[in-house]
Amino acid sequence: MIVVMQRGATEREINYVVERVQSLGLRPHVIHGTERTVIAAIGDKRDEHRASLESCPGVAEVIPILAPYKVASLEVKPERTVVRVGPFIAGNLHIGVIAGPCSVESEEQTVSTARAVKAAGATALRGGAFKPRTSPYSFQGLKEDGLKILALAREETGLPIVTEVITPADVPVVAQYADILQIGARNMQNYRLLEEAGYAGKPVLLKRGPAATAEELLLAAEYILNTGNHNVILCERGIRTFESHTRYTLSLATVVWLHQRTHLPVIVDPSHGTGHSALVPQMAAAAVAAGADGLIIEVHPRPETALSDGFQSLTFEQFEATMELCRKVAEALGRSLGAAVPATCH
Amino acid sequence: MIVVMQRGATEREINYVVERVQSLGLRPHVIHGTERTVIAAIGDKRDEHRASLESCPGVAEVIPILAPYKVASLEVKPERTVVRVGPFIAGNLHIGVIAGPCSVESEEQTVSTARAVKAAGATALRGGAFKPRTSPYSFQGLKEDGLKILALAREETGLPIVTEVITPADVPVVAQYADILQIGARNMQNYRLLEEAGYAGKPVLLKRGPAATAEELLLAAEYILNTGNHNVILCERGIRTFESHTRYTLSLATVVWLHQRTHLPVIVDPSHGTGHSALVPQMAAAAVAAGADGLIIEVHPRPETALSDGFQSLTFEQFEATMELCRKVAEALGRSLGAAVPATCH
Amino acid sequence: MIVVMQRGATEREINYVVERVQSLGLRPHVIHGTERTVIAAIGDKRDEHRASLESCPGVAEVIPILAPYKVASLEVKPERTVVRVGPFIAGNLHIGVIAGPCSVESEEQTVSTARAVKAAGATALRGGAFKPRTSPYSFQGLKEDGLKILALAREETGLPIVTEVITPADVPVVAQYADILQIGARNMQNYRLLEEAGYAGKPVLLKRGPAATAEELLLAAEYILNTGNHNVILCERGIRTFESHTRYTLSLATVVWLHQRTHLPVIVDPSHGTGHSALVPQMAAAAVAAGADGLIIEVHPRPETALSDGFQSLTFEQFEATMELCRKVAEALGRSLGAAVPATCH
Amino acid sequence: MIVVMQRGATEREINYVVERVQSLGLRPHVIHGTERTVIAAIGDKRDEHRASLESCPGVAEVIPILAPYKVASLEVKPERTVVRVGPFIAGNLHIGVIAGPCSVESEEQTVSTARAVKAAGATALRGGAFKPRTSPYSFQGLKEDGLKILALAREETGLPIVTEVITPADVPVVAQYADILQIGARNMQNYRLLEEAGYAGKPVLLKRGPAATAEELLLAAEYILNTGNHNVILCERGIRTFESHTRYTLSLATVVWLHQRTHLPVIVDPSHGTGHSALVPQMAAAAVAAGADGLIIEVHPRPETALSDGFQSLTFEQFEATMELCRKVAEALGRSLGAAVPATCH
Repeated sequence: MIVVMQRGATEREINYVVERVQSLGLRPHVIHGTERTVIAAIGDKRDEHRASLESCPGVAEVIPILAPYKVASLEVKPERTVVRVGPFIAGNLHIGVIAGPCSVESEEQTVSTARAVKAAGATALRGGAFKPRTSPYSFQGLKEDGLKILALAREETGLPIVTEVITPADVPVVAQYADILQIGARNMQNYRLLEEAGYAGKPVLLKRGPAATAEELLLAAEYILNTGNHNVILCERGIRTFESHTRYTLSLATVVWLHQRTHLPVIVDPSHGTGHSALVPQMAAAAVAAGADGLIIEVHPRPETALSDGFQSLTFEQFEATMELCRKVAEALGRSLGAAVPATCH
Repeated sequence: MIVVMQRGATEREINYVVERVQSLGLRPHVIHGTERTVIAAIGDKRDEHRASLESCPGVAEVIPILAPYKVASLEVKPERTVVRVGPFIAGNLHIGVIAGPCSVESEEQTVSTARAVKAAGATALRGGAFKPRTSPYSFQGLKEDGLKILALAREETGLPIVTEVITPADVPVVAQYADILQIGARNMQNYRLLEEAGYAGKPVLLKRGPAATAEELLLAAEYILNTGNHNVILCERGIRTFESHTRYTLSLATVVWLHQRTHLPVIVDPSHGTGHSALVPQMAAAAVAAGADGLIIEVHPRPETALSDGFQSLTFEQFEATMELCRKVAEALGRSLGAAVPATCH
Repeated sequence: MIVVMQRGATEREINYVVERVQSLGLRPHVIHGTERTVIAAIGDKRDEHRASLESCPGVAEVIPILAPYKVASLEVKPERTVVRVGPFIAGNLHIGVIAGPCSVESEEQTVSTARAVKAAGATALRGGAFKPRTSPYSFQGLKEDGLKILALAREETGLPIVTEVITPADVPVVAQYADILQIGARNMQNYRLLEEAGYAGKPVLLKRGPAATAEELLLAAEYILNTGNHNVILCERGIRTFESHTRYTLSLATVVWLHQRTHLPVIVDPSHGTGHSALVPQMAAAAVAAGADGLIIEVHPRPETALSDGFQSLTFEQFEATMELCRKVAEALGRSLGAAVPATCH
Repeated sequence: MIVVMQRGATEREINYVVERVQSLGLRPHVIHGTERTVIAAIGDKRDEHRASLESCPGVAEVIPILAPYKVASLEVKPERTVVRVGPFIAGNLHIGVIAGPCSVESEEQTVSTARAVKAAGATALRGGAFKPRTSPYSFQGLKEDGLKILALAREETGLPIVTEVITPADVPVVAQYADILQIGARNMQNYRLLEEAGYAGKPVLLKRGPAATAEELLLAAEYILNTGNHNVILCERGIRTFESHTRYTLSLATVVWLHQRTHLPVIVDPSHGTGHSALVPQMAAAAVAAGADGLIIEVHPRPETALSDGFQSLTFEQFEATMELCRKVAEALGRSLGAAVPATCH
């Protein structure tokens, strides 16, 4: 941590900061620059209350040097984490593909989608049973009935299930059916939920909040990792910016940045990340080229009748074409995408 | 709702949309423009699944006409809601002032702060007992012990207590002590929490999420209002933008915009909104001038030792000066700020 | 400048950085922390090419300590700059008020507006003759004819003229008529224009770009100040954010932040900053409470017929009411707004 | 254009809007909805002054239906524009590769870089001679001397030159040396510069401003296209968002969005778009996968000594590796990247 004093800070103010640094268990090191004095505070603690130094008289700014996350850090664990659930593998050279409807609406809709995405090479099925909706007047999901339908689709296809849990009290019921628990973007900083999901012991897919920095995403992951659950998948799904031609701004550079700092696999959601089905195929391919360890894509048998997010859902044909596009990129880069697809599918 | 067709959309595509509009219980009205055909869908439903129309072949865009919120709307209830709890009044010409430490750290710290802010004219005491923290390694709050300290401070000063609840399971214990339940910015779209807090029956202070639009804030408020609890206070506390010289960008125009659309009182948090104690006094005054119905301000006896957010906390003296500044603005505009302060305090 | 080495940086990498720091004319100071080594580079130069240190092997990050601006800094010139042009005074306790139409459309429109805003207390007249327009198909301004109309309005009312110059070649003609040259938000980083405007010798009103940080605004001001022209007025007019209910997000905290770092006067444009006439009056009042040294407000005799920006223009009556509101706030804070208005106007 | 009336708008207010619509040469069509009245204004004009309708009493909102750009539109010209200059081809299935230093610093630096990037397959040389710099204290470029060095490098390698022009008065001298004129992000809305550059008759590379929407980029392109110059290349180079781990947020979805609306080629700048050399290779590959028609990449013989932007410049080796990576993706997708590279280079 570096404490930058104001120009003209007095000897007394500098001494006071030196004392405060010592009282926090750190070793102060004073450097007198040409215009300003700077105090380096040496030690291995990251406790946030040091930020209080910014309130000392004469202090201009406090600059942290150490990254605030630990367990998620590549410095701490240099081997990449690979998350595996049945046919689904995310990490290393494997790109896991999660596909399915935004919401589970019916058995027919869900099972037919599961079959179609499996045939195209997906390795997991997504589908929302508990839906967090911006408006209380929107469809809120089929709840446990939805989970049962997902379980049925799994039986039919062998695809593991990825589904969202939106509140701590629902973790037991969701974990009973789901293979991977999804924490949605709105809940990235719902810390009790992160912990409950972590303790459930199943892999957790953690989506980045639309206003969260990449560092905050890693700190949210630490809440889960600290429960002893190391199967955490990070997901870039776009941030809120001034751009209105897309629903969010999908930041693929964040995927690369994360890979250089964390051992956790990072997947990409081009459906929410763009909000328009017409943009999904090429952004999925771009995500693969950027090194994503997986994709999560919304697919619906008939998007124009979907109870949620139809405008960003692919049809079966569009999903199949997207998989072909992504597979070409993955193979060119020496990686494998989703499941091997029987030749007849091509 | 207006459905804009693509240039060159076929008769068949137009007819398909007309049918879909009818099947949603709406009355279609086709307008052939010079370059494009537009279909107005008439009816009073706001159901979100209409957005699925965007997936119909040939559709370029779907534009909603009706605001998605209802109960919070000034069109539905033209009289302003005034929230009153003991000395605290927010709304009409009264500006409620909530002040206190970011976190409850000790009895001495909390009670002394309560006394100081009361003396300066505050009408409610804030203090965090359950703290949602970005990092799992930061101080997480004293939990129920913190609530007990707050209750003690209330006994000493008569100030009602505003404190945050961060997960549905905690609502009963928090509601047992608190006078106003605070929903923090991270939890603005934690819908189960909104509902639980609403059912607790006490006034709810709802903070805007850093990536939430003003419309999404109103929709979140509807989750609470729909529990039958009408004592909802909205709070502008800054949004995430590219600006890094302030912690968030405090959008006072949103206060004015909200006042023109909702009957709910709107308060402002200049402490989180700026993240620097040096910016708080004038932004508090600006909030009053913009018409805010209240202020929520962080105050700490010795900010440089605070366990959280010291850099944005005012000292007692700074808070008193801020109140004087704001009072001048309020009175000039024919409004009253906080409690009447005995002459000897000036 | 602080150079943070990567964890595990080698002795050789550290030595290389030390050498590079010396070769830039700075004094290196190595600090071995618990986890990382940090090298402070001491000296008074701010040259940007030091940033190249970030490319040295083993370097994680380079953190600047000194602010990059100089002449605009309060540290260099602690007395506030006050800009005066006839009745217009911005700075100290005087709030200058610039009002008028977005575009000069006709003599009648401009002169009548000049009279109306003067009667309400404005101290300068704004009006665009050279208009930078997002679309080439929009009205581009009356050019020199517009300037002549402005000069006429000045003759009639005595109000000095503020008008925009959009390209270096136009500076001579604009400076021939204008009293204050306006650099629009799109041109904040049009450096040749900044210099030309500076050399013209008249006061320059510099608007913040919608994606510019406050620090970049100060650096842009330095381009003007370095021509020897010290009459620079900064203008906050909103930044681009995800908020779409306002045209831009007006950041009043930036006004306060600037006042704590620069001696230049800072004014606010609530018309562009919000984009809706209904939001202008209270945001103007909030700007005054935040300490703004001036306001620039769009006024039009009949906004619904304006050739540009009608939606954010006030009518004469709305402007008069806005001035009354702002005057109350200004007087409560011991400051004066615009010109003294004869009693009969109230 | 759709005019949405406020709830409760009077008959008189509606009639007034109808008249105003007619007076603008449009045909009004009134639709009485359940809650609101909406007036469609039919006609083919896009004149912006229609926005003034928003100022009519009783109007809630005006929604444009037609895109404001014309000549750049795919609807107007369905064949893709391909820009060719010597070996450089951008568009169709060809990916043009522009590489070179941020600034021209010396003959040795520029010529050696030109040779290296050519050997790796680049088809054009970039290099700044006139540099727009945030700070007046930063290196401002070698100006015409820099242009001469670029011309020399072209002679040596046959690579066409791409270089920035920052003010209209410089267009003649820059056009005398350059093969492609670059308009930088800061100048995207410097309309006189766009026009001058357009009239120079050489291809123009137009970078998106960091706060500009994709639609505004197209409108800026129209300023150039309207000079009769149809060789315009659009460039996505990142927008300003809250993300601070990258210099800008590179929005690859914008590339896809643009391709669906304009016939102009779209290239990507991963150097400025990320601001870190470590992120450039994979983001270049991702851009290719997203369908970019070209790349512009900063390369420097020794980035840690660069006079500008060293932190985002690739070394020769890194550029060669990046080209190999991108070539794999391009070939997998049936496209060709840069120049064919002699087998010995691999």
